[in-house]
Amino acid sequence: MKITKEAIELAAARIAPYIHTTPILTNKSINEQYGLDLYFKCENFQKIGAFKIRGGMNASLQLTPAQLSKGVATHSSGNHAQALAFAAKMLDIKAYIVMPESSPQVKVNAVKGYGAEVTICASNQIARESTLQEIVDRTGATFIHPYDNDEVITGQATCVKEMIDAIPDLDIVVTPVGGGGLLSGTCLGAQYFKPGLKVYAGEPEGAADAVLSIQTGKVEKAPFINTIADGLMTTLSERTLDIIKTHVTDILLVSDEEIKAALRLVYERMKIIIEPSCAVPLAAVLKNADLFKGKKVGIILSGGNVDLNKFKDWF
Amino acid sequence: MKITKEAIELAAARIAPYIHTTPILTNKSINEQYGLDLYFKCENFQKIGAFKIRGGMNASLQLTPAQLSKGVATHSSGNHAQALAFAAKMLDIKAYIVMPESSPQVKVNAVKGYGAEVTICASNQIARESTLQEIVDRTGATFIHPYDNDEVITGQATCVKEMIDAIPDLDIVVTPVGGGGLLSGTCLGAQYFKPGLKVYAGEPEGAADAVLSIQTGKVEKAPFINTIADGLMTTLSERTLDIIKTHVTDILLVSDEEIKAALRLVYERMKIIIEPSCAVPLAAVLKNADLFKGKKVGIILSGGNVDLNKFKDWF
Repeated sequence: MKITKEAIELAAARIAPYIHTTPILTNKSINEQYGLDLYFKCENFQKIGAFKIRGGMNASLQLTPAQLSKGVATHSSGNHAQALAFAAKMLDIKAYIVMPESSPQVKVNAVKGYGAEVTICASNQIARESTLQEIVDRTGATFIHPYDNDEVITGQATCVKEMIDAIPDLDIVVTPVGGGGLLSGTCLGAQYFKPGLKVYAGEPEGAADAVLSIQTGKVEKAPFINTIADGLMTTLSERTLDIIKTHVTDILLVSDEEIKAALRLVYERMKIIIEPSCAVPLAAVLKNADLFKGKKVGIILSGGNVDLNKFKDWF
Repeated sequence: MKITKEAIELAAARIAPYIHTTPILTNKSINEQYGLDLYFKCENFQKIGAFKIRGGMNASLQLTPAQLSKGVATHSSGNHAQALAFAAKMLDIKAYIVMPESSPQVKVNAVKGYGAEVTICASNQIARESTLQEIVDRTGATFIHPYDNDEVITGQATCVKEMIDAIPDLDIVVTPVGGGGLLSGTCLGAQYFKPGLKVYAGEPEGAADAVLSIQTGKVEKAPFINTIADGLMTTLSERTLDIIKTHVTDILLVSDEEIKAALRLVYERMKIIIEPSCAVPLAAVLKNADLFKGKKVGIILSGGNVDLNKFKDWF
C-alpha cells in the first residue's frame, strides 16, 4: 500500500473506538523559564500507556477473517508487545509475543495480562527472529512488525493528525526516533494535514543511527549503544528511512544528561510520568531553544510505561 | 466568620482567576481490577502543585489594604508555604515564610522562586512559632495558618464544589486528613452543595491523631509518628475537629505498606505523580472496597510536589 492522506483518515476512524484522544497539556512554568510555547501530546495516557496501540490496532483491524482466525505475532520487549496483545484481546484473537529474557517482568506480566501467549527467548536479534519464525510457521499467525509496516506507520500518523485538529496553527512537531515508525508517520501526517508544519526528531547520542542514516542515505547501525532511552535503541528500516529523509526538518542529538534533565523537568513541573525515551524530544528542544522560540511547538510524549525500580537510576 | 454556603461560592469566584479547575480522571484498569467506580480530582495539577493554593489565595485576597501593605507570614515546610508565597506574588505583596532546617532544599527554592523571604529555623514547633512571632512583631505581616483559619478552610471547600459541579451524582468523596483543612472544607462543601454526599477520610496508622480525636472528642496527638505520608503528620485544631466530628462519615486507617501499594498503582496505571499523602485516600478505599462498591466515589489527589530523590525509598 501507499500511505495516503485518505489512509490516515480511515485509520483514525478505524481505531477511534479502541483508543483515547489523548489530552494536550501546556506548562506555564516551563514555557516561562525557557521562553517557549510548548504543547505536550500525552500519549503516556493512551491505552496501554503508549502511542504504539495506534499502529498495532490499525494493522490488526485490517486482517482478513482467515488471518484473524490464526492470530498475530511479533517480537518485542516493549510497548509494541503490549499494543499487539491489547489489539488481539479487543478482537478476540490469538497473540503470540516473543520477548527476550532480558524483558522486565512487569512488561511480561502486562502482555500476559492481556491474554497473549508469551515465548521467552535469548536476548539477541537472531534468537528473536528465529523464535518468531518458528511460531509463525507453526500457527500461521500474521507477523506485525513494530515499525517496518505500512499499516503500523499509518496508525502512528493519526497522532499528529489529532494535534493538528486541536491546534490548527501549530508550527513545529517534535518526536523521538527509534525505529522510525512514529517519526515517519508524523512526517506523512504533517505533510498531508498541514503542509509547512516542520517535523523535528530528538535522538540519543548513545543510539545515533538515524542521524547517521540521514547523512549516508542508507540504514546504518548506531556507532555505539549506550542510553537510558531504552525505547530508542532500534535502527531505522528502509521503509521508515525513505519517508524520514524526504520529510524531516532535522534530527537533533542529545546526551543522557540532557535527557535526564528533561525527564526531571516533566516529572517535577508537569507531575506526569513518561519514559526516558519520551524526554528526548523535549531535551532536543531545550538544547536548541533558538530554533523553537516564537513558534507553537508540539511535543509527542510517546509513552509512560516505566519500571518504577528504575527511578533510582534516573534521579 | 461562619463558613457558609455563600462564603464558599464567593471564595470559588474570588480565587477562580488564580487557580486551575483541575481535571477529574478515571482509570478503567483500576476500576475493573477492584470492581469500583472512582473519580480522581487531580489537585496535583493545581497551581503550585497542590490544593493548598485554594485556601492560601482565598485568605490573602480578603486582606485589607492596610494588611496587604504589610504582607503575609506563615511557618510551613510544605505546600502551604508555596501557596502563600505564590498568593503574595500574585498580589504583589510581601510573604515571610518560616521553614524548618529539615525542609528539602527543593521546597525552599520553590518558595524563594516565588519571591518570598524565607527564614530557616530549628526543626521543632517552638522554634517555628517563636521565629514566626518575631517576624510578625517586626513587620506587622498577617499570619495565615495552614488550616486553623476559616478563610483557608473556605478556600479548600471549593475543591469538592468543583467535583459536585462536574459529577452531580457523586455518592462519596474521600480525602486525606492531616491538620484537617481539606477534610473540614470538604465536609462543609458536601453538606451545602450535595446533602447526603458521604465524606470519608484516609489517615496513616503512623499519624493517627484524627481517628483518636474523633473517638475522644478533643484534639489529640498521634500515639506515634512514623509514616511516608509526610504531609499528614500535623494534628487537627479545635476548629477543624469541630467540623469534622459533626460531618465526617468515617476516618479509615491505612498502613505505610498499603499507602505504598496505592502510590504504585497510581504511578503505574495512571502515569501521574502524586505525593505519598495523596495515596492515602485510595489506599483506604481499596482496603475497604466493600464500603465503596456500587457507588460513584470521588478521591481528592491533593498534591504532586515530590522530591524525586525519595522515589528510591518508595518503590
